[in-house]
Amino acid sequence: MGKITLDYSRTFISDEEIESLVPFARTAHDMLHKGYGAGSDFTGWLQLPQKIRKEEVERIKKAAVDIKESSDALVVIGVGGSYLGSRACIEALNHNFYNQLPIDKRRGTEIYFVGNNLSSSYISDLMDILENKDISINVISKSGATLEPAVAFRIFKNYMEAKYGKDNGKKRIYVTTDEHKGALRKLSQEEGYATFAIPDDIGGRYSVLTAVGLLPIAVAGLDLDGFISGFRDGLEDYSRDVQDNICYKYAMVRNILYSRGKEIEILVTYEPNLKYLAEWWKQLFGESEGKDGKGIYPSSVNFTTDLHSLGQLIQDGKRNIFETTINIIKPRRDLEIQRLADDIDGLNFMAGKTVNYVNQKAFEGTVKAHTKGQVPNLIINLSEMNEYYLGKLMYFFEKACAISGYLLGVNPFNQPGVEEYKKNMYQLLGRPN
Amino acid sequence: MGKITLDYSRTFISDEEIESLVPFARTAHDMLHKGYGAGSDFTGWLQLPQKIRKEEVERIKKAAVDIKESSDALVVIGVGGSYLGSRACIEALNHNFYNQLPIDKRRGTEIYFVGNNLSSSYISDLMDILENKDISINVISKSGATLEPAVAFRIFKNYMEAKYGKDNGKKRIYVTTDEHKGALRKLSQEEGYATFAIPDDIGGRYSVLTAVGLLPIAVAGLDLDGFISGFRDGLEDYSRDVQDNICYKYAMVRNILYSRGKEIEILVTYEPNLKYLAEWWKQLFGESEGKDGKGIYPSSVNFTTDLHSLGQLIQDGKRNIFETTINIIKPRRDLEIQRLADDIDGLNFMAGKTVNYVNQKAFEGTVKAHTKGQVPNLIINLSEMNEYYLGKLMYFFEKACAISGYLLGVNPFNQPGVEEYKKNMYQLLGRPN
Repeated sequence: MGKITLDYSRTFISDEEIESLVPFARTAHDMLHKGYGAGSDFTGWLQLPQKIRKEEVERIKKAAVDIKESSDALVVIGVGGSYLGSRACIEALNHNFYNQLPIDKRRGTEIYFVGNNLSSSYISDLMDILENKDISINVISKSGATLEPAVAFRIFKNYMEAKYGKDNGKKRIYVTTDEHKGALRKLSQEEGYATFAIPDDIGGRYSVLTAVGLLPIAVAGLDLDGFISGFRDGLEDYSRDVQDNICYKYAMVRNILYSRGKEIEILVTYEPNLKYLAEWWKQLFGESEGKDGKGIYPSSVNFTTDLHSLGQLIQDGKRNIFETTINIIKPRRDLEIQRLADDIDGLNFMAGKTVNYVNQKAFEGTVKAHTKGQVPNLIINLSEMNEYYLGKLMYFFEKACAISGYLLGVNPFNQPGVEEYKKNMYQLLGRPN
Repeated sequence: MGKITLDYSRTFISDEEIESLVPFARTAHDMLHKGYGAGSDFTGWLQLPQKIRKEEVERIKKAAVDIKESSDALVVIGVGGSYLGSRACIEALNHNFYNQLPIDKRRGTEIYFVGNNLSSSYISDLMDILENKDISINVISKSGATLEPAVAFRIFKNYMEAKYGKDNGKKRIYVTTDEHKGALRKLSQEEGYATFAIPDDIGGRYSVLTAVGLLPIAVAGLDLDGFISGFRDGLEDYSRDVQDNICYKYAMVRNILYSRGKEIEILVTYEPNLKYLAEWWKQLFGESEGKDGKGIYPSSVNFTTDLHSLGQLIQDGKRNIFETTINIIKPRRDLEIQRLADDIDGLNFMAGKTVNYVNQKAFEGTVKAHTKGQVPNLIINLSEMNEYYLGKLMYFFEKACAISGYLLGVNPFNQPGVEEYKKNMYQLLGRPN
């Protein structure tokens, strides 16, 4: 199937400089594939595209059909890696106003995310919206004890029982959690909820191809087979030797740029519905590499929108940044620019062109301008955005992140720094030991 | 009225260090107030809270009433400073699912933003949503020639004429543009559109208190008088001498941190509907300071959500960051955490507390943790978020940005770097000279 290409010709990096890193990239590959790198207990995602079980996927599809038949909306309760992957996919591949579309214009039910913050206003507001809808719940938490989803699930468990009665409420609750242990597994056994397992060897930010991501994605009507197929081709393409592997090249280039003082990577997209793909990417790289006093700061912009806010700084500000653009050649929908009789805005010279043509020229002009401003520019080209390309792109980033983290000298699979604030918070909340 | 407070006790900056900058802050104050600083042609926003004309505000309110009576939705066409301010306010003060609420639960019409990108999918998708709604248009562009709003306005001008007929379509178009010149002014005169003026001495990112921001804000049902009153009190409070002026202290602290190598400022909020306030802030500071090879990189996170994605990096990554938290004591709505019979998640110790109480403890625990991780933390405290406090906060940031820019040695009011990509783009598009 289709290729993703990487253009790093505008990064001010010579072939020799890349070449000098090749042996290290091969070492990082071995650390990952042979399992002697740090965090190797959490590399289940690596071969997952091949190992994913057909029966598991069929069970997920079946549950999605049940949810779509019984519900107007699915409420997804999860935080961090337990919601960013599915949200990224659902938004990237759907209508920009998906939840507001009439049912006959949507492929799936409405999808709402909660349990990813502690905003009482947000939760209360969501309740207003759900008032006259039939809903199902997918609560996603490995331990079942993470604060935000636990608080939300307390609220929604009561809500479902009050709305549907204890027995019928239970049938609308789908739990994605640890296969054997934890609060949610125990409760699911007691209550008889439908459950899906989160494997032990896959961390949250690498979990989009498990039930964590796949169930909400399926309920939104996306094509799981295409998505998995993209992951599979990613596994094949991005396991090659480094000379023929754009995924490893991306990892090398960003490490070279970091060592030159480019401390901020800006992920650039030209479609507003890729915002959550950027958020997923930020978690992936930020949580994997931001440790031991090191790590590129992952940021994102949506162009051309943010050319009118951060464009000035990128062009002329401190030269501590580089950009990585996800360039999608063919848009989901296009529109033609029409001729105006009086040409008041002076744009008649574009009449007959499409809006996406103009978007492409904005992209080309921006890369040229920012490169002239000494901002290294990487470009990831996709011929279009669909389930296949999205799956392949996500695997590209997952694997690039692992290799990049090893090259940086960190364990890309742990997150020791997230405990400190939790310790303080629970102390302030007076949790008993 | 109410105060906004600034806590910079966790920034690792001594009183002596602040003191050493005081004479420079006084100089920056004079440059701004006496008009001898760079860019002084664009400081109309400085005294605007006092100078804003009552008749202008009444005209805006009247137009808002007309739009609300005739329309289900207002479509706001604008990019950069022509939409970020109003969008920030509308989202910060409204229901999280504002556009989806039934009409009787909203204070204003639905509001949609377009003309801020070149995404053909986004524009086409928006058209789907508007299909069965009566709409009005507010097109906002000083020159009338900015590409994104011009492309969108071409589409919507035709759409309105086709839907309502030429004469009735015109009555639903509101233009906010240059007072005397430019393509949109000329067209408005020809077509008889209702118009509002953008003053010559106020740049886009400083324009929220002009018709640019106020008309959409009023259509969303927000209280313009409270908003203006917050700006007025801001003007009074933040014109004081630096010793008694938290706005200038914020400007000084961020310059000290920048000179210590803290090159990234993360604006932290704990409410998801403050996302666009952060986007507005990013444009304000990024476009004002990011030039001449200098400037703090403005970024933002929404906690506790992003504690589960960027929290690791903030705690343990490269120490080139500092955080500024907007802390809102009282939420718009609150919820109580209920006791669960079986306490499966171990959270019964919090039963009877509110979700916002937990959010506050998360904030306190996070500041403590990140400070321990050597990340300087600034805290801006607001007792609640309403029109008044939002207005005051926006003036706080506007003025802090001007002072901060002068301290950094840049012209905070120009944006020379945004021309380069446009030049390339128009060349690629084949625009005649």
